[in-house]
Amino acid sequence: MRFISETTSDGVSEQLFILGEIPGVLWTPEGAVGTRPLILMGHGGGRHKKAPDIVARARRSVAECDFAVVAVDVPGHGDRPKDEEYDRIATENQARVDAGEELAPLIAGFQTLVARRTVPEWQAVLDVVQQLEHVGAGPVGYWGVSLGCGLGVPSVAAEPRVRAAVLGLGGALASAEAAARITVPVEFLLQWDDERVPRAQSLALFDALGSAEKTLHANPGKHGELPAFELDSTLRFFARHLC
Amino acid sequence: MRFISETTSDGVSEQLFILGEIPGVLWTPEGAVGTRPLILMGHGGGRHKKAPDIVARARRSVAECDFAVVAVDVPGHGDRPKDEEYDRIATENQARVDAGEELAPLIAGFQTLVARRTVPEWQAVLDVVQQLEHVGAGPVGYWGVSLGCGLGVPSVAAEPRVRAAVLGLGGALASAEAAARITVPVEFLLQWDDERVPRAQSLALFDALGSAEKTLHANPGKHGELPAFELDSTLRFFARHLC
Repeated sequence: MRFISETTSDGVSEQLFILGEIPGVLWTPEGAVGTRPLILMGHGGGRHKKAPDIVARARRSVAECDFAVVAVDVPGHGDRPKDEEYDRIATENQARVDAGEELAPLIAGFQTLVARRTVPEWQAVLDVVQQLEHVGAGPVGYWGVSLGCGLGVPSVAAEPRVRAAVLGLGGALASAEAAARITVPVEFLLQWDDERVPRAQSLALFDALGSAEKTLHANPGKHGELPAFELDSTLRFFARHLC
Repeated sequence: MRFISETTSDGVSEQLFILGEIPGVLWTPEGAVGTRPLILMGHGGGRHKKAPDIVARARRSVAECDFAVVAVDVPGHGDRPKDEEYDRIATENQARVDAGEELAPLIAGFQTLVARRTVPEWQAVLDVVQQLEHVGAGPVGYWGVSLGCGLGVPSVAAEPRVRAAVLGLGGALASAEAAARITVPVEFLLQWDDERVPRAQSLALFDALGSAEKTLHANPGKHGELPAFELDSTLRFFARHLC
C-alpha cells in the first residue's frame, strides 16, 4: 500500500493510495489515533471512488461518527485502465437492449462477472487498511447501492469482518444465492419508481437476504433519486451496529 | 370536554377525559405552557387508548420531543359500551373465516364501517384539544397501525390539520381511494411476515398513497412484531415534519 497524497478539510483527512493495481481513498478523522469502525463503500456503475455521493457520505460518516471510510475504483472504472472484456460486454449489452432485450438480466450478468474480481480485491483492501494505526481492526460496515449492491452482496456474504451493510437499488437476479448467505443486519434501499431495476426483483432481493434483522426503506423516485434523509438513516444504522 | 383525572410521572402529565361519549387521554409535558405539535394516536383492533404500545409511544413523544399526544377509545373498544352491531359483525366474520373465507376483506369491510364514526369523532377531539392552553393550534401528526391505519387513512385524508402521518400494518382493500387523497408525508410500516395483511395488499396501500414524500419501512416478523428501532424512526419523522 502506497500513499499518494493527503489533504485535510473540516476535520476530515483524505488519503489517496494505491494497493497493487487498485487506486483507493481513505477518509479518517483529522489526527485520528487508534482503532475505529471502518466503512467500505462501493461506488455505482460508470462512477468512481470519489463520486460526489460517496464523498458526501464518507465525510459525514467521519465527521459525525468518527468512523474511517475506504473506497476503491472497481475494475474498468475511475483511475483504473479500461478493461477490454468489460467494454466488449457493455457494447454487446447495449446492442441487445437496443434490439429489445430486458436490461435487468444483462446488468445482473455483468455484475456477477465483475464480482469475481472485486470480492478478493476488497478483502485485500480491508486487510491492509485495518493494519493502519489510525484505523485498526474494528468492526466493518459495507455501503453500496446499484453496482455497489451487485458487488456488495457477494462481498458481504464472503467477508466475516462485515457486521452490517446498507445495500439497495439492485435486484435478485445477480445475487439471490449470495444474499441468502448474508446474516448481518442490512438496511436495504429501494426506489419505488426505479427505471433500471424492476420493483419485484428488488423486493425479491430483500426477501432473499438471510439476515434476521433487515429493514427495507422504499421511497418514491427514480434510480438516482435517493432522498437525502436516507443518509441520516444510514449513519444511525451504522452507529447502532458498529459502535 | 370534562377532565376526570391527572397524574404525572417522569415529567409527563397524563389527563383522562370524556368528550361527549368519547373517553380519551391526553399526555403533555409536565408544566407545559403554550402551543406545541399534537400527535393523534389510533389504537389497534381489540385494544384501547392506553394499550401499552400507545402509552410507550406517547410518553417518549412527550418526553423527547415536547409534543402533546391524544388517544381516544374507538367505538366498541376500551371504556366504551359494547356495540351490538359491531359484535354481531365480528361474530359473523369469525364464522365466515371458520368456513374458509379470506380474513383481509372482512377486516377491511369492518374498518370502513367503523371509520364512518371515527372520522368525525377524531375531528371533534382535535377541535377541543387544540383549544387547551397547553396544547394550542400547532401542527398535527397522526400515528396508527393495523385498525389505527384502517381508520387513520380516511381520517388523515379528511383532516387538513394533519401534516404528517405514520401508518401501516394495513392493506389497500379498505382504503385505497382515501389513500390517494392523502398528500402529507407518510412513514408506512410493513411487517414482511404479516399473518393478517397480505404483503401485496400492504404494498398496494403504500403505492396508493398520494403523498410526494412517503417512505416504506418493511421489517421481518409478524403483525405484532414491529421492531423497537421503528419507534426511534417515528419520533425523528414527526420531529422533521412538525417542529
